[in-house]
Amino acid sequence: MNHYKAYCFDLDGTVYHGTEPVPEAVALIEQLQQQGIEPYYITNNSSATPEQVQQKLAGFGIHTKAKYIVTSAIAAAHYCKENFTDAKVQMFGETGLREALLAEGIELVTSNPDIVVMGIDREVTYEKLADLCLNIRAGAKFIATNGDRAMPTERGLLPGTGSFIKLVEYSTGVTPTFMGKPEPFMLSYIQEKSGYSKEDMILIGDNYDTDILAGIRYGIATAHVEGGVTSREEVLLKEDHPTYLLENLASVSIEKAFQG
Amino acid sequence: MNHYKAYCFDLDGTVYHGTEPVPEAVALIEQLQQQGIEPYYITNNSSATPEQVQQKLAGFGIHTKAKYIVTSAIAAAHYCKENFTDAKVQMFGETGLREALLAEGIELVTSNPDIVVMGIDREVTYEKLADLCLNIRAGAKFIATNGDRAMPTERGLLPGTGSFIKLVEYSTGVTPTFMGKPEPFMLSYIQEKSGYSKEDMILIGDNYDTDILAGIRYGIATAHVEGGVTSREEVLLKEDHPTYLLENLASVSIEKAFQG
Repeated sequence: MNHYKAYCFDLDGTVYHGTEPVPEAVALIEQLQQQGIEPYYITNNSSATPEQVQQKLAGFGIHTKAKYIVTSAIAAAHYCKENFTDAKVQMFGETGLREALLAEGIELVTSNPDIVVMGIDREVTYEKLADLCLNIRAGAKFIATNGDRAMPTERGLLPGTGSFIKLVEYSTGVTPTFMGKPEPFMLSYIQEKSGYSKEDMILIGDNYDTDILAGIRYGIATAHVEGGVTSREEVLLKEDHPTYLLENLASVSIEKAFQG
Repeated sequence: MNHYKAYCFDLDGTVYHGTEPVPEAVALIEQLQQQGIEPYYITNNSSATPEQVQQKLAGFGIHTKAKYIVTSAIAAAHYCKENFTDAKVQMFGETGLREALLAEGIELVTSNPDIVVMGIDREVTYEKLADLCLNIRAGAKFIATNGDRAMPTERGLLPGTGSFIKLVEYSTGVTPTFMGKPEPFMLSYIQEKSGYSKEDMILIGDNYDTDILAGIRYGIATAHVEGGVTSREEVLLKEDHPTYLLENLASVSIEKAFQG
């Protein structure tokens, strides 16, 4: 895999499991950095800012800059900016989404939006959801950060962003445009910012249905790593296989895959 | 239709539209009462108590007793009582659901429930939804009052009970048992309480997919009345037709249908 220039790492399940780092991932990232390659990190999480993710990674011994961290919120803000000139946006989300939208210079409104951008807002109220539904029924475009069903926490699996989006989708009958994996918007964002070609890019992740599919759909190399959501056996049953199947991210596995 | 003994009227769309009564329905109900027949009223709404519905009907000139009003909350409470002895119930709902469960002598808990009964609670918080999901994932049975997508209000169509249930269903992967129409639980409740046979019962409603299907599934006569959710043309495209197709509930239509 040494000939790639943009290594796009999934985070939860690949670089860490909740609050525990994956040692092989940390070592691989350090090794790449020593070779002068700064990896990218992509996450469907829309509630955290890149700076918050950066801080979490630093706690695992991974030192990077915020600009190498791409969230579904950043992809959503960029998508709005690129596709809808001067659009007024109503958002349902937390700091990560708000800051991403403001960073693109997007005007946030609470009534008569052109676009509704929906992530997760754990300060949810019925009124907030009612407003979103009314505005989408009135014709606002419906953009969603990601479809994740559940959010892993110490307490167990709590409702994820996708479950709130499902509520609005079910109530209005309008299906949103999703920004997170398996959609390729975070990858196209990285390509645009980095200037690398698709041949230079590889996505490394544990979840076939989000990570690997995003890479396959975008048309770049993919490496599935075991130990997370999807097992090797499950991956082999899929119609489209990743470029590489890795037991873990230890250098020896990488070298073997690359030569194999 | 004069030979029926238990007339089960759908409410919104049949007896009234929002805050406006349907004059032919009010007249028919009065006519039945003069013949000594007390109609039943069935509604998927789980948030109101029978007394609150009774008061609303009185405002339209329809005078009845609370015991003739059956909500999806009453069906849910009865279902829990009949099927699960001494079960502890966690509820997500408003006064109508709370009072229905307490009226059946059911113990309400906030942790370690055997059953989660979900209606609509417009004081929703993330914590409440998270608790429901954790308890359902831990094995609590999942019962839902109704699957209605939207709630008609003066402001427009707001998120309905079904959209919150969809959130929990999507997040947990567990499909609930629904109590409201088109499921027949409110009709079986009426049969049990009234003692009438299925041949004595007729359901009168405007919505094919909830009202008419509930009657067909329960195996009683059904009368579809125009002017609400489903048009006559749409009904005729369905595989199973209602017993009667009525333009409205004026006596002349009823007589014609009955003789036809």
